[in-house]
Amino acid sequence: MKYNFGAGPCILPQEVFKQAAQAVLEFDHTGLSILEISHRTPEFEAVVAETERLVRTLLNVPEGYSVIFLQGGASLQFSMVPMNLLGDGKKAAYTDTGVWANKAIKEGKLFGEINVIASSKDANYTFIPKDYEVPHDAAYFHCTSNNTIYGTEMHQFPKSPVPVVCDMSSDIFSREVNVADFGLIYAGAQKNMGPAGVTLVIVKDEILGKIDRKIPSMLDYKIHIEGESMYNTPPVFSIYVSMLNLKWLKAKGGVPAIAQENLAKARALYAEIDRNPLFKGTCAVEDRSNMNICFVMENPELEKDFLKFAEDRDIIGIKGHRSVGGFRASMYNALPISSVHFLVDTMQEFAEKHA
Amino acid sequence: MKYNFGAGPCILPQEVFKQAAQAVLEFDHTGLSILEISHRTPEFEAVVAETERLVRTLLNVPEGYSVIFLQGGASLQFSMVPMNLLGDGKKAAYTDTGVWANKAIKEGKLFGEINVIASSKDANYTFIPKDYEVPHDAAYFHCTSNNTIYGTEMHQFPKSPVPVVCDMSSDIFSREVNVADFGLIYAGAQKNMGPAGVTLVIVKDEILGKIDRKIPSMLDYKIHIEGESMYNTPPVFSIYVSMLNLKWLKAKGGVPAIAQENLAKARALYAEIDRNPLFKGTCAVEDRSNMNICFVMENPELEKDFLKFAEDRDIIGIKGHRSVGGFRASMYNALPISSVHFLVDTMQEFAEKHA
Repeated sequence: MKYNFGAGPCILPQEVFKQAAQAVLEFDHTGLSILEISHRTPEFEAVVAETERLVRTLLNVPEGYSVIFLQGGASLQFSMVPMNLLGDGKKAAYTDTGVWANKAIKEGKLFGEINVIASSKDANYTFIPKDYEVPHDAAYFHCTSNNTIYGTEMHQFPKSPVPVVCDMSSDIFSREVNVADFGLIYAGAQKNMGPAGVTLVIVKDEILGKIDRKIPSMLDYKIHIEGESMYNTPPVFSIYVSMLNLKWLKAKGGVPAIAQENLAKARALYAEIDRNPLFKGTCAVEDRSNMNICFVMENPELEKDFLKFAEDRDIIGIKGHRSVGGFRASMYNALPISSVHFLVDTMQEFAEKHA
Repeated sequence: MKYNFGAGPCILPQEVFKQAAQAVLEFDHTGLSILEISHRTPEFEAVVAETERLVRTLLNVPEGYSVIFLQGGASLQFSMVPMNLLGDGKKAAYTDTGVWANKAIKEGKLFGEINVIASSKDANYTFIPKDYEVPHDAAYFHCTSNNTIYGTEMHQFPKSPVPVVCDMSSDIFSREVNVADFGLIYAGAQKNMGPAGVTLVIVKDEILGKIDRKIPSMLDYKIHIEGESMYNTPPVFSIYVSMLNLKWLKAKGGVPAIAQENLAKARALYAEIDRNPLFKGTCAVEDRSNMNICFVMENPELEKDFLKFAEDRDIIGIKGHRSVGGFRASMYNALPISSVHFLVDTMQEFAEKHA
């Protein structure tokens, strides 16, 4: 048993692993593995329908929004969003809050004018910009709710006169959001939804179909909506495991309950980072992420030692991204608070050793 | 235990299911599920490298070709192929041999001029056209090696003065092909490679990078080649199970050995279709597929009865596609010949009952 603080693909609940392994052997008393069933069977159609229902329930998705499951991760959404929403000669507003936001901007530029209305790039993305206004003439406003690499999170979203498009890959299902405030939400599954290989898109139907561009079928949201996520063969197993995981979340009390737990987990670790003289946080306190907690050591020469000290205790996945250095503890929904306490204890032990 | 003749996602070897289920519980003595490991770990990088090596070995992929694993299935390839290979104002030659070929043509038209140089559409795709020449001025020639819905297969490929692009989704790894004859081969995994969720592309490097169009990163073959299939988070589990399945194939003697088995399986069923007065094949004998065997009944009123008769014997997935009717028995690599014999016996029993 490891303490898995990896940034993603990441920890999922142990009971989900057990149920998924069972379904690989035999799915739902069908006499077949989940890996050999047709996506056109009533049994699998029920899985897709149930997964959609869980998304709608857990996030209180209002009427007028479609929920679809695609492939290609957030990276493909970086292109699909402008392809579907940004008409030729139109402009869109983006905030640049990290590597992934930056990639979204880069892909957007292939389709129209991208105005970066706020950026924390010059400060190595250590904070979330707040002092900006979303222009009325943008086709949409794009933001990234949580910046995995830098450990910052948007705790509030700006008022916007145009549809808000948000990459929620690394914090969806971790806290309450008001879906009605968004035009389109997308998320690669591999943090709090399920295993890698499926992408969630929640889109307000009325923002689609307003541009003239001819869109390849597989990149057209409307086609996937009409096909009910089965325009082509979907990633069967990834959707199935997402269903198991969202069921687990629902049984735990849903998003409000997990948000409380996530807050408690984050507070416990940030308290130690702020208290322990060997460690310090890397970003603005008010913008700290509850999902990815980045920290470094006052004495960088100790970082290699601490990494080994932690790994010897089966704590894995805490090496920071190369653009920040130090450490990153990712604390997604399935990470138990006991793992956080264990990491805190380890930091304290290490500090005592080096007192 | 079922006799799974489904068209895809389809049967894979039982031992692959067992190994995959085990890895969902614990992957390779890591203390972690395959569903919670980072794609950037050395352990998973080794999986991708080994899967690529298996593809190269099993298909004798020559030097100068890249092997990559993508998402989105053949359906996304219908767009990626022209996006990467068909310059503005250029034309490409396609054959129309079924529903999927037709979709490829439709998507191609968004990017340039598509010349359909041969079609069997007017004959409900019951044969493979052979009487055509691939024009010298086409950017590439596109064909579909096996037509799942209609049960036809290209047993020979035409000489082509331009790169041949082939959708091999439903017969790759089932028979020997000379990869050097092709510019690009693509295949959704969910027949003979692995579970749904990953797409194989084998491309001759020198045909890429020759057009001016700006291509979104996720749709650019060169970017995925440079990223060694890890430009973004790959479909970890689908790649892992593909590796297990290709290992199984290699241990069986590779493609030449399985091709012999597939031929024996197909001959056994076609022999019964041709012998049994109740049944008849639906397509030209010389173009019959060894993967998907389509047949109807002389008396269509008996079809419902036969379907039930077969299902009562745990034979599943044999209902024909609505565009052909009757029956389709898909006999992918993992289907044992004993299942074919059982289907043949069932057809004979049914015939005796209705003599």
